[in-house]
Amino acid sequence: MKTIICEKLGIRYPIIQGGMVWASSWHLASAVSNAGGLGLLGAGSMSNDQLKENIKVMLKKTNKPFGVNVPIDRANFKSQVELALEMGVKIFFTSAGNPAIVIPFIKEKGAVSAHVVPSVKHAKKAESVGADIIVAEGTEAGGHNGFDEITTMCLVPQAADAVKVPVIAAGGIADGRGIAAALSLGAVGVQIGTRFLATKECLIHDEYKKMILEAADTSTVLTAKKIGPVRLIKNDYALQLINAEAEGKSAEEIRTLYGKKASMLAAIFGDRIKGGFQSGQGAGLINDIPSVSELIEKMVSEAKNRSLQVYSICSS
Amino acid sequence: MKTIICEKLGIRYPIIQGGMVWASSWHLASAVSNAGGLGLLGAGSMSNDQLKENIKVMLKKTNKPFGVNVPIDRANFKSQVELALEMGVKIFFTSAGNPAIVIPFIKEKGAVSAHVVPSVKHAKKAESVGADIIVAEGTEAGGHNGFDEITTMCLVPQAADAVKVPVIAAGGIADGRGIAAALSLGAVGVQIGTRFLATKECLIHDEYKKMILEAADTSTVLTAKKIGPVRLIKNDYALQLINAEAEGKSAEEIRTLYGKKASMLAAIFGDRIKGGFQSGQGAGLINDIPSVSELIEKMVSEAKNRSLQVYSICSS
Repeated sequence: MKTIICEKLGIRYPIIQGGMVWASSWHLASAVSNAGGLGLLGAGSMSNDQLKENIKVMLKKTNKPFGVNVPIDRANFKSQVELALEMGVKIFFTSAGNPAIVIPFIKEKGAVSAHVVPSVKHAKKAESVGADIIVAEGTEAGGHNGFDEITTMCLVPQAADAVKVPVIAAGGIADGRGIAAALSLGAVGVQIGTRFLATKECLIHDEYKKMILEAADTSTVLTAKKIGPVRLIKNDYALQLINAEAEGKSAEEIRTLYGKKASMLAAIFGDRIKGGFQSGQGAGLINDIPSVSELIEKMVSEAKNRSLQVYSICSS
Repeated sequence: MKTIICEKLGIRYPIIQGGMVWASSWHLASAVSNAGGLGLLGAGSMSNDQLKENIKVMLKKTNKPFGVNVPIDRANFKSQVELALEMGVKIFFTSAGNPAIVIPFIKEKGAVSAHVVPSVKHAKKAESVGADIIVAEGTEAGGHNGFDEITTMCLVPQAADAVKVPVIAAGGIADGRGIAAALSLGAVGVQIGTRFLATKECLIHDEYKKMILEAADTSTVLTAKKIGPVRLIKNDYALQLINAEAEGKSAEEIRTLYGKKASMLAAIFGDRIKGGFQSGQGAGLINDIPSVSELIEKMVSEAKNRSLQVYSICSS
């Protein structure tokens, strides 16, 4: 399964593991890189020291390419990027902010820059400031999300038409069918988040994994729309946010309810009541906890079989 | 491009034209059937006399199979089904209500029954009461929509896993890439709405077609969520609804704002201010007004080319 993304990133399969807060430490990321995908360390929930430690271990655990995902809405994003560059990281996935404040710097240092976008306008902007790769992420994706709620099915082909750089699809992809669909829409790779949470190597709390396995198609909801949408599994915490929004509560009130610890309470403590369990809508497709390498091999083989079936249909 | 749906419905291509209020009269539906797809008369905006007249003309304009889309939340749905059955209609697409009150009746009379659903639960329910075909419609679709806002990318594979009957994908499909993606996800056909609005044969007002051509990825919004979500192009009417919802207005107040004439004002009078322009999020992919037959041939050819490219990638 070769695309231009494999060359650009030096990986075997065009499968990126999304950077996820409290979930994408070296344990998951090194397993993904070793299995032929691109592992990303999720700097969004790490102090600079934690990021440093994670990069150090990554360099021991894999000799394959890996990257760092840096949300640029955090105070320490610049020092995180600098630190990673100094330690030899060559691939950066940035998100959640204006790419003009970080991509030129990454490019200047000779690293590869991918930027996650929720709309065509954002895709064009990221390309214009030098992004090598665009990750077009649909509203079905877990965690932080765009305001315009554009779905993967609609966003990916429009982004692919709008920019010249390669487009990676994200949002709702949890098996080989999703990979084949993303490639059909014009993407040359996929970024997968939630599906990688339910793997042996991912360190999140068992309750979190259980909640993903239990999830149906209707189990997630987009919360906190006034302050920045976040897709969560429907639990007490998520429903509180939803109800406050339905009652017309102010952005400030939503921010207070949202708090700062819910993601950690979910991923580290498995708190089913107070935790904010970030998850994509594709959670309903997830029914097992394989190893990362089993998962990647299975998805690649599914995508291959499915794409042959589709070609047979289309040429019959 | 042959699937089981072609056999079941007696059509050349597994492409269904969605039933759309004020937009799918015999003019559009006969063009679709004659071009090898399945044209549907949209009974939702027709009186019984208008439906009768439309069926009469359809029978003259095409000798190919066609169907009637009947929203079952309207007072006259039963008499519409009876009337169509008496006139020899053999294919029914039902939506917007409990399928148990209509599908057994359709099946008893020997007709084919397809039911449009927004979630896996609804898909299972429709199958259990005898639906021959499930149309799994994602939240990116135009017009009336599910409460759970499940996207096509996530809904189609989950519906395909959950039921034994064939699944048709709907929502966000506006070109051959979308068709190839839908087939990749496990669908055996597609239902396309908005893309057919912007065709020569569709009788909607020119302003409506212009608005679809002008639309970007961010141009639609899901309104009226408290009373039953409807996806509209963002104009004064749609923004009024959205603002009322953000302010926490009651269902009753939303219903009053929603009114009863907005769809007609859009489709018949092209009223950019007061009209409710139902449109899918895929409108941003639409940039021309071809004839129905040009459109279908182009989409089929795109899907074929794209599926070959994807198979080449997946087997490289």
